[in-house]
Amino acid sequence: MTAPHPFEIFMREAIALARRGRWRAAPNPTVGAVLVRDGQVVAHGYHTACGMPHAEVECLRDAAANGVNPAACTLVVTLEPCNHHGKTPPCSRAVLDAGIRHVVVGMADPNPVARGGAEFLRQHGVHVEMGVCEQDCRDLVADFVTWKKTDLPYVILKLASTLDGRIATRTGHSQWISCPASRRRVHAIRAGAGHAGGAVLVGGGTLFADNPLLTARCGDFSDAFPVAPQGGCPNVDDAAAPRRQPLAVAVTSRMDEVAARAGDLVLLQQRAADAIFWTTEAAAASPAADTVRATGARVWGLPSLSGTESTGGTGLDLRVGLARLRSEAGCLYVLCEGGGQLGLALLEAGLVHEFELHLAPKVLGDNAARPLFDGRAPLRMDDALGLRVAATATSDEDLVITLRPKA
Amino acid sequence: MTAPHPFEIFMREAIALARRGRWRAAPNPTVGAVLVRDGQVVAHGYHTACGMPHAEVECLRDAAANGVNPAACTLVVTLEPCNHHGKTPPCSRAVLDAGIRHVVVGMADPNPVARGGAEFLRQHGVHVEMGVCEQDCRDLVADFVTWKKTDLPYVILKLASTLDGRIATRTGHSQWISCPASRRRVHAIRAGAGHAGGAVLVGGGTLFADNPLLTARCGDFSDAFPVAPQGGCPNVDDAAAPRRQPLAVAVTSRMDEVAARAGDLVLLQQRAADAIFWTTEAAAASPAADTVRATGARVWGLPSLSGTESTGGTGLDLRVGLARLRSEAGCLYVLCEGGGQLGLALLEAGLVHEFELHLAPKVLGDNAARPLFDGRAPLRMDDALGLRVAATATSDEDLVITLRPKA
Repeated sequence: MTAPHPFEIFMREAIALARRGRWRAAPNPTVGAVLVRDGQVVAHGYHTACGMPHAEVECLRDAAANGVNPAACTLVVTLEPCNHHGKTPPCSRAVLDAGIRHVVVGMADPNPVARGGAEFLRQHGVHVEMGVCEQDCRDLVADFVTWKKTDLPYVILKLASTLDGRIATRTGHSQWISCPASRRRVHAIRAGAGHAGGAVLVGGGTLFADNPLLTARCGDFSDAFPVAPQGGCPNVDDAAAPRRQPLAVAVTSRMDEVAARAGDLVLLQQRAADAIFWTTEAAAASPAADTVRATGARVWGLPSLSGTESTGGTGLDLRVGLARLRSEAGCLYVLCEGGGQLGLALLEAGLVHEFELHLAPKVLGDNAARPLFDGRAPLRMDDALGLRVAATATSDEDLVITLRPKA
Repeated sequence: MTAPHPFEIFMREAIALARRGRWRAAPNPTVGAVLVRDGQVVAHGYHTACGMPHAEVECLRDAAANGVNPAACTLVVTLEPCNHHGKTPPCSRAVLDAGIRHVVVGMADPNPVARGGAEFLRQHGVHVEMGVCEQDCRDLVADFVTWKKTDLPYVILKLASTLDGRIATRTGHSQWISCPASRRRVHAIRAGAGHAGGAVLVGGGTLFADNPLLTARCGDFSDAFPVAPQGGCPNVDDAAAPRRQPLAVAVTSRMDEVAARAGDLVLLQQRAADAIFWTTEAAAASPAADTVRATGARVWGLPSLSGTESTGGTGLDLRVGLARLRSEAGCLYVLCEGGGQLGLALLEAGLVHEFELHLAPKVLGDNAARPLFDGRAPLRMDDALGLRVAATATSDEDLVITLRPKA
């Protein structure tokens, strides 16, 4: 076991700061920075929103406001300082001009255009250390990297289960698996995704069984919403009345049933213009689809994906739908809230960038209770879908496990 | 949200120290202590073994060895300093004599005989704060409290599952759910339980299917075993060759099958004197039981527990078996490694003091795969067995979740 880097504790603080900028920073990466002197954080900053100053500059401003001399400090920053003129001048120059002689960086800039800040600083005699808490810093900008490297939105799968992997009893009773704090957290993610122009995605089973509105309603919860939790609402005001609700996407081959229930589904009754249905190409060309379109909703026919029907999905090429959400609707985030069939189909297709499992510390102990996932039939343990535990947190009584694709 | 106590960070260090004494401290509580001056830990100590000095005294010795003046420090200790002459003189007096004026305590002494240290110190003008990280400090001595308040050993249930609550594929293939580090951890707990004169407990299914030896074999793993991890081997030497292997207890109504396989079961072939079988009173009086006893093993008939057969257990009153392990065999710890039927029976009977779930970040996605638990039939989510997440840790790629009874 290697000893932790002496600045690791400060990098963790910078990471926590960076997370406060989630949703608002998009399509920029979230970045946090602290200035450290004599083992104490004396200034901090993060990238609060797209178009606003970068984290390093916010941190230098904070130092100035507090009468701190940055030249006597180490700068700890989650992402390599940028080296180019974008919406703001290069941070590498600002760091150098501030007289800082020691910089600790979480990860190199994944953006080729902005890269070179570390090299620039080294050329000017600054001691630059790279790669402290690197994996956590990479996870922090996984959304940004997805946007840069693919044509997809960043997909978050959120599901809740008991310790023994159940989402409902044998009778289907599921209220509630997770605690109020966890359910609030989901509304916070909806609010954040909505703020960034994202979408909530559900399967047809959830649509027909729950008749959900799929809006962010943090205000429904009477106790105060914590300001800027990890992945949380941008702030209390936004949570109570988000500026923009997320789009609502439902995946179903049963357009007939959607049409028949058009007067009943609250999604169509209250926010049809925000609703998008993913269905088969045949169903999208049916009269039922036109009935649904008449409400103001969109119906998209997606190509079938041969050979994967057995995996429990709808057999649709979900990648096509996701790419279209990004290109046509400008979606940067998609939050999939289930059901398990849809979630498993996304996982199998490698389309989940972040899987947030809300694990309630309870045991049903019944193999007839509804399982978290179903539809695969692996014979060997080696055939399981492998993920990576990226983070854990508690949400009141529940455990929130953040999983990501294996590195 | 309340701000953390300024000494919380040091209490966490004291808790981590205390854990190093696990298994060796028994039947005493594990306790850790640090001396803090100017925001730095300047001395530390823990109760290393029964009969050795208490944590506070170890900490004061460390201070003396380092030339630290305790009178200038705050003492942070997980458990209230004892106030009585046991194997060692009272710690409250030692703390006072050292000139310490500020003491931060995790929890009050649960032992009525030793209580009063905080009051003694206050009477002598020392500023004593109680209850910092109290729940974690309580969890630390849950074994000690169990020994004091009940006639039972401290029962640890350890199971491993996939994210979706499966312990094997539909064909029964299970090697391996958990990563090598997690499997090593189990051997470490076996070694610790063995050191403290404990037992490993398995169900008949596990006995017949796996034909296990149930010894601690940390030495089987070639990479170095970390010294004193949380709940780990006392140390590397003990792990490679524990001074005492745990007893091995198997629960089964099928004494005929045990007798028939007496020449095959490695438990009977290699360590019959350590083996105990729990079975029905009728089976314990059968000729098959005598055949098993002839190997040197013990066979205990346990009373049946009417009305709980449907819960997946063997219908035996496991509490009776556990109490007998404590009274007859001196067992302080029992580690139940499954299967799920036995684990669920213990959970339902409220006999699990600590449930360590090794959650592998993989998904089988198959409702025909073998479930972690089965045998209950709750109709409503409210009928789930509720637990409490006490701690989480990573074990290489796995997540280790420690659950405890609700407070």
